Amino acid sequence: MTIIVDSIWYHEKYHFTYFSRTTLDNPAAASDLLASILALSDFHPRLPAQRRLYEAAKEAIHKQQLTAGAKLPSSRDLAKNLAVARNTVIAAYEQLMAEGFVTGARGSGTYVAHLPQLGHGAASAPAVAQQVAPAVAPLSQRGARVGAAAAGPRFEIEPFAPGDADFSSFPIKLWQSLQNRVWREMHSELLDYSDNGGYLPLRQAITAYLRLSRSVKVNVEQVIITAGTQQSLNLCAHLLADVGETVWVEDPGYWAAQRVFQAADLAVHPVPIDKDGLAPRDSDLETRPRLMYVTPSHQYPTGAVMSLARRLQLLDIAARQQAWVLEDDYDSEFRYTGRPLASLQGLDNENRVVYIGTFSKVLYPGIKVGYMVLPPVLVEAFRSAQYDLHRPGQLMVQAALAEFISEGHFASHLRKIRQTYGARREALKRTLEKHLGSKTSITISSEESGLHLVVELPDHVDDVALSKLAAESGIRVNALSTYYLSPPVRRGLLVGYAYVTLEKISYYGKLLASIIESAER
Amino acid sequence: MTIIVDSIWYHEKYHFTYFSRTTLDNPAAASDLLASILALSDFHPRLPAQRRLYEAAKEAIHKQQLTAGAKLPSSRDLAKNLAVARNTVIAAYEQLMAEGFVTGARGSGTYVAHLPQLGHGAASAPAVAQQVAPAVAPLSQRGARVGAAAAGPRFEIEPFAPGDADFSSFPIKLWQSLQNRVWREMHSELLDYSDNGGYLPLRQAITAYLRLSRSVKVNVEQVIITAGTQQSLNLCAHLLADVGETVWVEDPGYWAAQRVFQAADLAVHPVPIDKDGLAPRDSDLETRPRLMYVTPSHQYPTGAVMSLARRLQLLDIAARQQAWVLEDDYDSEFRYTGRPLASLQGLDNENRVVYIGTFSKVLYPGIKVGYMVLPPVLVEAFRSAQYDLHRPGQLMVQAALAEFISEGHFASHLRKIRQTYGARREALKRTLEKHLGSKTSITISSEESGLHLVVELPDHVDDVALSKLAAESGIRVNALSTYYLSPPVRRGLLVGYAYVTLEKISYYGKLLASIIESAER
Repeated sequence: MTIIVDSIWYHEKYHFTYFSRTTLDNPAAASDLLASILALSDFHPRLPAQRRLYEAAKEAIHKQQLTAGAKLPSSRDLAKNLAVARNTVIAAYEQLMAEGFVTGARGSGTYVAHLPQLGHGAASAPAVAQQVAPAVAPLSQRGARVGAAAAGPRFEIEPFAPGDADFSSFPIKLWQSLQNRVWREMHSELLDYSDNGGYLPLRQAITAYLRLSRSVKVNVEQVIITAGTQQSLNLCAHLLADVGETVWVEDPGYWAAQRVFQAADLAVHPVPIDKDGLAPRDSDLETRPRLMYVTPSHQYPTGAVMSLARRLQLLDIAARQQAWVLEDDYDSEFRYTGRPLASLQGLDNENRVVYIGTFSKVLYPGIKVGYMVLPPVLVEAFRSAQYDLHRPGQLMVQAALAEFISEGHFASHLRKIRQTYGARREALKRTLEKHLGSKTSITISSEESGLHLVVELPDHVDDVALSKLAAESGIRVNALSTYYLSPPVRRGLLVGYAYVTLEKISYYGKLLASIIESAER
Repeated sequence: MTIIVDSIWYHEKYHFTYFSRTTLDNPAAASDLLASILALSDFHPRLPAQRRLYEAAKEAIHKQQLTAGAKLPSSRDLAKNLAVARNTVIAAYEQLMAEGFVTGARGSGTYVAHLPQLGHGAASAPAVAQQVAPAVAPLSQRGARVGAAAAGPRFEIEPFAPGDADFSSFPIKLWQSLQNRVWREMHSELLDYSDNGGYLPLRQAITAYLRLSRSVKVNVEQVIITAGTQQSLNLCAHLLADVGETVWVEDPGYWAAQRVFQAADLAVHPVPIDKDGLAPRDSDLETRPRLMYVTPSHQYPTGAVMSLARRLQLLDIAARQQAWVLEDDYDSEFRYTGRPLASLQGLDNENRVVYIGTFSKVLYPGIKVGYMVLPPVLVEAFRSAQYDLHRPGQLMVQAALAEFISEGHFASHLRKIRQTYGARREALKRTLEKHLGSKTSITISSEESGLHLVVELPDHVDDVALSKLAAESGIRVNALSTYYLSPPVRRGLLVGYAYVTLEKISYYGKLLASIIESAER
C-alpha cells in the first residue's frame, strides 16, 4: 500500500489537517483507504453497509484522498477486503456513478471522476463566478425587520395572558366524530389542493352566519377560505398595495398585522386610537393611504368600539382616496350583552371593505381556518393569487367545520363559551374593582366584549416593569405601552380572562391587584 | 301622520329615488315609516322581529328618511303599532344605541343621532379627507402580476396532467386511526399555535429520514415545519432578499415558485437548463444573485438531474457571492432505480443551502405540511418570522404524521407508491416508444424518476396547439414551451403518469401517440 502525505488540506471550515492520497494506478491502496475510513467507530455507525461505503468513498473523494482518475478496486476485491457482500459494493458504486463521483462501466473498471471544484480543473467546468463579492448580512433588511427575535411575545397559557381563547372547552369528541364522518364518506378530491376559494358548503355556512350575525353584505362568491388571518392580511398587503405605499394601522395596535405589512414593504403609518376607535388627523392624510387596517368591533388592544360617526368617516375617506379598508373582526363573537355589533363592511356602499374573520378564537388556534369577504372586483385575482402563492388545502378540516356549523354545533358552542367568558370577565372585573376600586387614578375598561380587560394606569407607572413583576408571581399580563408605535403612550395592563377558571380568577385577580397597588403607590 | 316628499336622494350607487322625511318632532310618523318598511314582503323575511326592526331603522336613518334629531316613538307605542312585544322594540333600540345610530336614555326619549357622513354636519365629525384623490386600479402592480387569471393551470385529475401524485392510494383508514389516536391521547397544547418550528417528534422523524435517505446534513434544530413549499419559499424570499434583488430561477422552471418571488418584488432572472441541470453563463453573474432556486434531484419540468460538477459549481458561486441556494427537493422520493440521489445540501460545507421538502407529493396535496432545513445562522430569525407572519398551527396533523413515519408506515407507503409509479412510468414509456419510436425527431426522457415524462418534439411543432388538441380527446398534457421565461424555447409535452392506472395508460398512451404523430407530420 502506497500512501503519500503530500499536502495540507483545508478541511471543513476551520480545521487544517494532513491527508493522504492514493496514487492513480493503485486500487489496493484505495481499498485499504476505504477500509481504514470504515474502521473508524464513529463513521456513521448506524447506516447500512452499502451506505457507509458510499459515504466513505464520497468523503475520500472530497478530501482528495482519492484523486481524479484514480482507479478503484474491483467490486470483488473490495468486497473481500471489507468482508461484505459483493452486491453491497456494486450498489455503492452504482450510486456513486449515478451522482457523478465516479465514472466507468462494468468490466472496464471504476475511476474517480474529474470534479472542477475539487481543483481537478476538468475542461467541462464552466468558468463563471471567479470574482468574490463583498460580504453581506445573512438576512435581508426586511428579514431583519420581521425576523428580529424581539418580536412580540408568543401566546402562552398562563393566567391572564391576553389574546388567546380557552380552547380546552372545544368539543373534541364531537369534532372527532365529524372528522371521522368526512374521512369515511370522503370524496378523494378533498385530499387535493383547493382551487376555488375553499370548500363550498363551508363558504355557504360562513355566508349565512355573517349575514345574520354580523350584518355583512355578502354573497357566497365573495367568500375565500384562508389559512387564517395572517394569510388573509398577507394577500391583501401584496395584492392591494405596492412597495413603499402607505398602510394605516391603529396606534396602539396588533403587532402581528404590522409584521405582515412590514414584510410586504409597506410604509406603516400609525393613526391614533381614542375611545371611539380610529381618530385620523388631517396630517394623517398627507400621504395617501392605500390600505387602512382596523379592528372596529373591539379594538386591539384598547377594546374601544368604533363609533358610527367614525365608521362613516373612515368609509368616506376610503371612497375618496380609493383606499381599501381591512376590517379585522377577530373576536367580534365575544360580546356579552346584546347582539354583536354590526360590521363596518355592512355600512359600506362603495365596496371598499375587505372583511376578515377567523375560527382561531372561537374553536382553537391551531385549526388555521380563516376567511375573507372580498369586494366583487377583487375576487378573481385573489382566488388566483391564493392558489399560486399559497396552494390552499386542508379541505377535510373545512368539510368537518362545515358540518359543525350547519348542524348547529357552532352556534351552541359559541353560546356556551360566551357565557363562560362573560362570567369570567365579570368575576375578574369584580375582583379588580373590589381591590383597586378606591383608586381614582386607575380605570378598568368597561366594554362588554372581547377576551381581555385593560387596566389603565397613571402615566408615572412603568407598565413594562409592572408586567415583569407580575410574571415573577406567575401572572402573564402585557404592558399597554408596548402596543404603541409613537408617543404619547398610555400606561396599563392587558389582562386576559378567557382561559382562567372562575376559582383561579379570584386568587390571581387579588394577587394582580396587590401587585398593581404596590407599583402605583 | 306627516310625510313630506321634499327631495331627491342619491340612493345606493346608481338609482335615484324619491323618499320621504319625518319631521323632527313626529314620533308617530316615524312609527308609521318603520311599519311601512317592515310591511315590505321582501324586507329580510327570515330575520327575527327584533333584527328586522333594527334593520328597518338603520335603513331609514341611512336614507335620511329619519333625520338627525328626529324623535322615535316610545317603545310602548311602537310595539303597539307593529304588533310586536315591547321587549323586541327595546332590544332593537338598545342595539341601535350601542352602534351609535340613536341616542338617549330610557325615560328621556330616543333620538336619531347626528352622523356627519349623512350630511348632518355634526360638530363631532373630524374635518379630514375632503380632497378626492385621482382614480387608481383596484390591484397593486405586484397584485396584477401575481393575481392575473392567466396564471398557470391548476392541477386536475385527468389522464396525464403532470405535477400531481396519485393520492387515492393514500392509506386513509390507517391515517384515520392515527388521527383518532392523537386526538384521544391529546395534550391540549396541540390545539394551540406552534411556536418552535413545529412538533418536535415530527422534526426528529424528518431529521432521521433526511440524513438516511437524502444525505442531508441536519440537526433537529435546523428543521422548521411549514404549511408547504409555498410558505417555505415565501419566508426565504422575504427574509433573505430585499425588493429588487435578484433571484435565479431555472428556465424552463416551476411557475408557482416564480409567482412567490414576484410577489416578494424580487427580480426574477432566468438561467438556462441543459441536460446537466442549471447552466449559468458568465453574463448571469453580472447582477449578483441573492437567491438561487433549483430543483437538482429532478429538474422541473425537464427532469434533468444536476451533475456533480454543476452542483459543486453552484455551491462555489453561492459561497463566493454569499448567495443562498434554495434546493427544492419536491419529488426526490420518486426515483425508481437505485437509492435517491444525494441532496445538494449534503455537499455544501459553507452553509449556503436551504433545503426544502414537502409531504404533498408523497401523502396527499391538501395535507399542507412541508419543511425546511436551514443553515444554523438563519434558524432563530425564521422561527420568529414564521410565528409572526404565518402563526403556524395544525399540530394535530403533525402529530399524526410523526406517528405515521415513526411506525414505519411512511417507508412502506413510499415503497408501495414507488413501485406503482415505476410500473406506470414503464408502461407509458413502452407505449409511447412503441408508437413513436420510429421517429428520430422525437425523444422521450429517460430519467428514471419523478412523476412525469417529457416527450421532446422538433422545433416546428406547436406544442401549445398540440396540448389543446390532446385536451379535446380528454388528455391533459402541458406544453414544455410554456415553462420558459426567455428564448430559445424547446418544444415538447409533459406527460404525467402518477395517477393513471395501468389499464388506462395503454389506451390513453396510444391515443396521445397518434395525436403527436399527426401533429409532427
